[in-house]
Amino acid sequence: MKQLLYGVAYYDEYMPYERLQEDIRMMKTAGINVVRIAESTWSTEEPEEGIFDFSHVIKVLDAMQEAGIYVIIGTPTYAIPAWMAKKYPEVMVMDSTGHRRPYGARQIMDITNKEYRFFAERIIRKLMEVVQGYSHVIGFQLDNESKHFGTCSENVHEMFVSYMKKRFQGDLKCLNEEFGLDYWSNRINSWEEFPSVVGTINGSLGCEFAKFQRSLVTEYLQCQRKIVDEYRRPDQFVTHNFDFEWRGHSFGVQPDVNHYETAKCLTIAGCDIYHPTQDYLTGKEIGFCGDLTRTLKKNNYFVMETQAQGFPNWTPYNGQVRLQAFSHLASGADSVMYWHWHSIHNACETYWKGVLSHNMKENVVYQEVARVGKELARLSPKLIHLKKINQVAIMVSNDSLTAIEWFPFAPGQQPNKKYNDIVRWIYDALFELNVECDIINVEEENLIQYKMIVVPTLYSANQNTLLRLKEYVNAGGCLVSTFKTAFTNENVKVWSDDQPYILTECFGMTYNQFTLPVNVILEDEMLDVDKEERYVELFMELLQPQGASVIATYGHYNWKQYAAITENKFGQGTAIYIGCMTSKAYLKALLSNVLETKNIKEEKQLDIYPISVRKGINEDGHEITYYLNYSHEEQEIRVDNGIELLCDRNVSQDEVIKIAPWDLAIVERK
Amino acid sequence: MKQLLYGVAYYDEYMPYERLQEDIRMMKTAGINVVRIAESTWSTEEPEEGIFDFSHVIKVLDAMQEAGIYVIIGTPTYAIPAWMAKKYPEVMVMDSTGHRRPYGARQIMDITNKEYRFFAERIIRKLMEVVQGYSHVIGFQLDNESKHFGTCSENVHEMFVSYMKKRFQGDLKCLNEEFGLDYWSNRINSWEEFPSVVGTINGSLGCEFAKFQRSLVTEYLQCQRKIVDEYRRPDQFVTHNFDFEWRGHSFGVQPDVNHYETAKCLTIAGCDIYHPTQDYLTGKEIGFCGDLTRTLKKNNYFVMETQAQGFPNWTPYNGQVRLQAFSHLASGADSVMYWHWHSIHNACETYWKGVLSHNMKENVVYQEVARVGKELARLSPKLIHLKKINQVAIMVSNDSLTAIEWFPFAPGQQPNKKYNDIVRWIYDALFELNVECDIINVEEENLIQYKMIVVPTLYSANQNTLLRLKEYVNAGGCLVSTFKTAFTNENVKVWSDDQPYILTECFGMTYNQFTLPVNVILEDEMLDVDKEERYVELFMELLQPQGASVIATYGHYNWKQYAAITENKFGQGTAIYIGCMTSKAYLKALLSNVLETKNIKEEKQLDIYPISVRKGINEDGHEITYYLNYSHEEQEIRVDNGIELLCDRNVSQDEVIKIAPWDLAIVERK
Amino acid sequence: MKQLLYGVAYYDEYMPYERLQEDIRMMKTAGINVVRIAESTWSTEEPEEGIFDFSHVIKVLDAMQEAGIYVIIGTPTYAIPAWMAKKYPEVMVMDSTGHRRPYGARQIMDITNKEYRFFAERIIRKLMEVVQGYSHVIGFQLDNESKHFGTCSENVHEMFVSYMKKRFQGDLKCLNEEFGLDYWSNRINSWEEFPSVVGTINGSLGCEFAKFQRSLVTEYLQCQRKIVDEYRRPDQFVTHNFDFEWRGHSFGVQPDVNHYETAKCLTIAGCDIYHPTQDYLTGKEIGFCGDLTRTLKKNNYFVMETQAQGFPNWTPYNGQVRLQAFSHLASGADSVMYWHWHSIHNACETYWKGVLSHNMKENVVYQEVARVGKELARLSPKLIHLKKINQVAIMVSNDSLTAIEWFPFAPGQQPNKKYNDIVRWIYDALFELNVECDIINVEEENLIQYKMIVVPTLYSANQNTLLRLKEYVNAGGCLVSTFKTAFTNENVKVWSDDQPYILTECFGMTYNQFTLPVNVILEDEMLDVDKEERYVELFMELLQPQGASVIATYGHYNWKQYAAITENKFGQGTAIYIGCMTSKAYLKALLSNVLETKNIKEEKQLDIYPISVRKGINEDGHEITYYLNYSHEEQEIRVDNGIELLCDRNVSQDEVIKIAPWDLAIVERK
Repeated sequence: MKQLLYGVAYYDEYMPYERLQEDIRMMKTAGINVVRIAESTWSTEEPEEGIFDFSHVIKVLDAMQEAGIYVIIGTPTYAIPAWMAKKYPEVMVMDSTGHRRPYGARQIMDITNKEYRFFAERIIRKLMEVVQGYSHVIGFQLDNESKHFGTCSENVHEMFVSYMKKRFQGDLKCLNEEFGLDYWSNRINSWEEFPSVVGTINGSLGCEFAKFQRSLVTEYLQCQRKIVDEYRRPDQFVTHNFDFEWRGHSFGVQPDVNHYETAKCLTIAGCDIYHPTQDYLTGKEIGFCGDLTRTLKKNNYFVMETQAQGFPNWTPYNGQVRLQAFSHLASGADSVMYWHWHSIHNACETYWKGVLSHNMKENVVYQEVARVGKELARLSPKLIHLKKINQVAIMVSNDSLTAIEWFPFAPGQQPNKKYNDIVRWIYDALFELNVECDIINVEEENLIQYKMIVVPTLYSANQNTLLRLKEYVNAGGCLVSTFKTAFTNENVKVWSDDQPYILTECFGMTYNQFTLPVNVILEDEMLDVDKEERYVELFMELLQPQGASVIATYGHYNWKQYAAITENKFGQGTAIYIGCMTSKAYLKALLSNVLETKNIKEEKQLDIYPISVRKGINEDGHEITYYLNYSHEEQEIRVDNGIELLCDRNVSQDEVIKIAPWDLAIVERK
Repeated sequence: MKQLLYGVAYYDEYMPYERLQEDIRMMKTAGINVVRIAESTWSTEEPEEGIFDFSHVIKVLDAMQEAGIYVIIGTPTYAIPAWMAKKYPEVMVMDSTGHRRPYGARQIMDITNKEYRFFAERIIRKLMEVVQGYSHVIGFQLDNESKHFGTCSENVHEMFVSYMKKRFQGDLKCLNEEFGLDYWSNRINSWEEFPSVVGTINGSLGCEFAKFQRSLVTEYLQCQRKIVDEYRRPDQFVTHNFDFEWRGHSFGVQPDVNHYETAKCLTIAGCDIYHPTQDYLTGKEIGFCGDLTRTLKKNNYFVMETQAQGFPNWTPYNGQVRLQAFSHLASGADSVMYWHWHSIHNACETYWKGVLSHNMKENVVYQEVARVGKELARLSPKLIHLKKINQVAIMVSNDSLTAIEWFPFAPGQQPNKKYNDIVRWIYDALFELNVECDIINVEEENLIQYKMIVVPTLYSANQNTLLRLKEYVNAGGCLVSTFKTAFTNENVKVWSDDQPYILTECFGMTYNQFTLPVNVILEDEMLDVDKEERYVELFMELLQPQGASVIATYGHYNWKQYAAITENKFGQGTAIYIGCMTSKAYLKALLSNVLETKNIKEEKQLDIYPISVRKGINEDGHEITYYLNYSHEEQEIRVDNGIELLCDRNVSQDEVIKIAPWDLAIVERK
Repeated sequence: MKQLLYGVAYYDEYMPYERLQEDIRMMKTAGINVVRIAESTWSTEEPEEGIFDFSHVIKVLDAMQEAGIYVIIGTPTYAIPAWMAKKYPEVMVMDSTGHRRPYGARQIMDITNKEYRFFAERIIRKLMEVVQGYSHVIGFQLDNESKHFGTCSENVHEMFVSYMKKRFQGDLKCLNEEFGLDYWSNRINSWEEFPSVVGTINGSLGCEFAKFQRSLVTEYLQCQRKIVDEYRRPDQFVTHNFDFEWRGHSFGVQPDVNHYETAKCLTIAGCDIYHPTQDYLTGKEIGFCGDLTRTLKKNNYFVMETQAQGFPNWTPYNGQVRLQAFSHLASGADSVMYWHWHSIHNACETYWKGVLSHNMKENVVYQEVARVGKELARLSPKLIHLKKINQVAIMVSNDSLTAIEWFPFAPGQQPNKKYNDIVRWIYDALFELNVECDIINVEEENLIQYKMIVVPTLYSANQNTLLRLKEYVNAGGCLVSTFKTAFTNENVKVWSDDQPYILTECFGMTYNQFTLPVNVILEDEMLDVDKEERYVELFMELLQPQGASVIATYGHYNWKQYAAITENKFGQGTAIYIGCMTSKAYLKALLSNVLETKNIKEEKQLDIYPISVRKGINEDGHEITYYLNYSHEEQEIRVDNGIELLCDRNVSQDEVIKIAPWDLAIVERK
């Protein structure tokens, strides 16, 4: 696309009365230039088996074409019609409870079920036939927020056994050894007797099954891609609406999909990002999810959905809707699309409000959307296709995430943090330091492009990955790893050698004991951190330096002999190991010190959060810098010389400008 | 009845040894004049299918007749015998889990099941034949604490589909539109494919099913009434033992029964009321449940069960048993009946103690019961049939209750209040202001009989109800409504127009946004409320006055432009809208102001809670005033002139009398 | 055995690579003289149905024989192979949920299932044939941590009905009366219609079923004993690995096994004891579980499993591993065996670490184990077969435990304490007073051997037991009972007479009311206890003295007339009744007073906890006294004259010696 997309999900099907022309009028006024339609409306498109009715789709397509509004077509497959559940009950997913889900919600079908796949393919083809003549259909979204929904019915079990037979080339001895199945008499002595993994207590088996389930999602969307490709024009994109681990809002790496693998079947990555607002709007979710989605294809991406009004507790403060929209662009998004245009009058998302409230009239949010719409229309040439080149990357791993579900840091303790808590602990510290980063996959080959790679709890990894990390340091990189990295192999079998496996030389350190911290603090002579921020929580490894210098030790009478954080020169690079969970303040002090001493972050003045500073290069090759005020107080900042785009005025080097609460500035430097 | 009934539930079946004559002797000594028998003892009455044995019933009937103690017969249908469950497993209720309940507890049968209904009718007929000759059988209780028990087996689904077909006159298009079934592909395109509602995410469907389930209870008790009517004498009453939403004690409107509808098949309303005691005895549960039950048939009612000793944490303080008994009468009850005479020696209610402890001897509670018995015998002519004419009513709605279950105020927040919390927030404030009220149904036609009607969260209501409320204000009434009133129609479809629907003109106010309060206080210039009682909790609507005067605004930097509470003159009346949940103290200050300025509460001196003042007119046309001391401290109060009945002495106008802890006074003014 | 056993569980099956000779070398160095093998490895021993492979067993047996390390053989029956679950799905236990457990974990089979029992017998016989030639196999462990796993499938129901028919000699009338089944129509009128107890609300039935389920475990292990006896030599022992109520660690009386009954089929009792460490290491779990296990057969016992490193939060402080080992011996254990030798690299116990960490090398724990090994080797003749003669006993009851599950002290209140909380409240107070005790069963006949018997909540007991306790006091014993003792009979039917039943005369006190304490304190003129330790919690009975002297009353305006704690002379003895739950501090003061005034505890100087003092008589007839420092601070104590064995030096009467943190001294007095 040649312009920033500013859009909404639109459901003519859900309207309480005929609204289309009025809605289009209001959209045009607000600068909305694209709508996403058709996803999740299968039951209106195929009201009875084999009976098709695309009148809503055609009506909207015609009207949008006339109005000059682009359309993205979603395949409607993530919510099945009632007739299918009634006639083909086996399409309903059976999860580890052993029960099929009852009909009602979306995302309750077995994506591997043959009948479901037959019907899904047919409705996609019918829909594609209907929409392919329209020139303003700019692209397609495959399914929506696809996941495996925990499917583990008999057919999935059989597929899994075949997968395992292939993975182990039929060698049960190897499987039994690698997975430690002798334990508690779980040994498998024939492929026919391979028991269902539903009740397994073997984490290796459980993690492998989760990995297999993730592969089902990839295969499912690959199939949709193939079907769509038979109909689409070369100028039409194919995207998906990835979502993230959900903790009442988008939070971290998605457990049930390998985004990196699945993104290969898209022409452009897309995602939805939902986040707290009001006093809890921090920019971090917009940052994290955007950085990850951008890294998927190392290119710009679409925000397919984000909140307008959202939940009652998300009703935005003045300025927040606008701040959010520009924050997405600051991460490299080429679209901001609201879910959804109008609030719904029935069913379970009645209180997930859209741009319009239930009375369907102009309101304060609509007015702010309209303000953004005008600004985007004006600034689109300056802001579109923002390129970002980051010095820092965080390496994430679906497999480690699942493994930490099986082997939690502190089982039975509250609150028991999970993998994504560690990822966000790292990300949020960097975010507050205004250090932008990519979120790379564990498979990433080109590590040396980054000056620093931070590895949160890479608990399960194969030898290749660990060797690549070692070589990265050797070649001059700065590797920062947290506890529990390099503890198990790709089969979640603990390495029966010194930890961290392969990396002991690189880190100049080893350990064979760990415990949960009770009244333990960090002691060091390097960092300026208050005493109350020096606590250790969650987990601590008892590090024994073998060449590394000790950054911090444990302040505790029985553990004081052990190191908590170490730093080691290895080859041309540096490897820092954080053996325990610290406060965010301590981590920031540590990372800040590393960034400075390793010359990774040059600009000291960027320590100005709650102003979030995000940079990139626009199509003209100019540097664009966003200054986003994530606070309810006015902030003063110094800017570089350039043009402040929103006010369209020149700013000079080191000029102090004021940014109002929840407001922003954008400076273009030529 | 011509005398106050003072009674107990009596189970000869449960006695550990032969006790009947000893128990009767003790009852006579204590002034007990009625026993309720036979409910819940089906397995002794029909030990084997078709084999009947009423020897316990006959034995007790004979002995009570001889002793001059009245008997109320309960139909035994709410606890089924083991043989029925064994031979006819489908009588066990299947709830939304899809599993039939295992045998053991009471209230686990499917009240729509044909076999169950056959056996129920037969046992009722057999029992009626046995008891119909006894003149001291004064009436009947149909079943006990009847509810639908969540029944949703296949036959119930079919009944529901028939019900829906009739309700929508076969028009699926109308159903799909009204219920918004296009959402997430839930559209229903044939009655045959109507899916089970068990898994539905559509609140309209869920609420309609709950309403249908409530109608099953009404139909079930109507059938019992018809059977009993074939046998009963005209002087015998028919009642039921309604119970309330249970939160460890009787709390609020019953979700699973429409008391107002079901009461139509009774000649007199009856209920059980269980409440905290000791330091937590407030009179509010006795008041609320009594006021509601009295309103059902706008007449006196029976307290069929209340606690003697009850749970271990309810062991009464000295005086509380007596205070409770008179409190029931003060609300218009014509009976106080304890559950139960003796404590049980086995099974799950072993620790729900009766008048007698497990040793079956006299104890302190028995002694207090006996004191009450003597007083009631003496004062019965003065206290029976107390008539109450209240100026204030609270309007309640089963449908809104269920709808708020589906659409909670603050989903995922803790503590998340429910519909009955709002009802009790209102009721308790009025109770503490000593403003007595009726609890009217949403169908009530004669609104203008009340000077003030308070409407807590009438979330789901049809146009007629809303128009009636509007007309009530127009005609001079004072309407006070809380947030979330008039938000959805009778199908729980949000009105796609300005909120509060139909009533915007009446309230002189509208809103289209709402949020959850975080650090928000109420600001006003009218009410004298401490700062720490000015917090807003749970939910807040952002009110925009259109003619109304603003009573309070929100103290919060982003919401300060919006009103929180408004007052509007409309026609001859006044309409006050409370857009958020306040503290009880704030609500009391607000209501007190309204009651005073609108001249609804004349007697300022009634602000004397923990003395609860309850009034009525006795059969002689005299005003009876109860002064009930709900505290552990002696209280001094001023009384009108009249006779204090308990001490039988004259009191003069404005005389100050002392009321001991947990004690009371009753003044009759001629 | 003639020497203290110091051992580990060893699993050649789980090794990540060939380790046997290296492990043996390390064991020998560390003084390990026994390994337990073969339990839980069924799937390697019988990889396919009827195909046997004991190569791991034979290999380890041969190597251990050569190394001079003893071997204990565990029957492998508590974890079944996958093929069995696949081919015979009915071997999987069905619990009260009505679902069979899925395959995966251990302890998920129905121990009454015929197929399971067939396979279990066969694998035991095959294993016994393999091992019977080895002279260094010193004994056998039957199964492991056996329990009934909640089994209640159809066959168990049938067995239960037969059991009940026998128990009640076919007399249903008696059953109905005793169990109060008329209540809620639960009457059973034919044995054929006996309903499943899964849904019962009748606590008598529920408790009887639990008792029956416990008897299944006894029968199951008796059968294993018989099989093993066909093969074993007279010098070989038979033991079991009993475990305890688990609350994240060993805590109290096992609900699901009657240890006293089951121990009859063993030649020596054995158990596992797992406990908190670090700052939470108190010695109490080691004490309680050891005292109970020793009492089972009134003899020395084996600690079959205890932790080396254990959970991450158990990683021991320096010295704790050694302190723990000697603590076991101080209770009369003849073995200390670690679970397990090496940490496991897969599956759900990966983080339950053994002596070796995952890298399988020497570490600090191994070094401490080796130190202990050397000391044990040297001191074995002095420390083995320690005999203990205690003056005090605590009487425990499985039946009361289950009954309190059905009838909790404070239902719905948090935290709601359970039976074992009362047991441990008593035990822990005595432990801190350094008063050693036996943990006797309710069936114990010889009560008068003890000067004092403490009875925590003997809620369900038959007349014989109560009469025995009464006679014990009459004969001169000092009986201390808590609340809720003697409340129900052996059928959990509340006695319909004065409480405490049979014992009112003995205690000189009765009561018929009780409640839950809210702001109640204890008032007395005898005990020196701080005000903040005088609170009453959980439950309180309103005691009415009838001859007893009142030790404490309730400080509360409405309960002040009642006694809380009473003391009564009865016959030659004294009976003290504690009518409520007090703080531990208050209980200690009370017990201390009683112990002193009754001359039960002579040595005042033993109030030196955190030094735990444990005594016994060794084989030479000398008194051995352990002084165990359960604190992180050095302690000074006075000792008797004798030889301090660890340092091998003489100590003189009243000499003050220092004990380092988590260290100990052992003094032998000739």
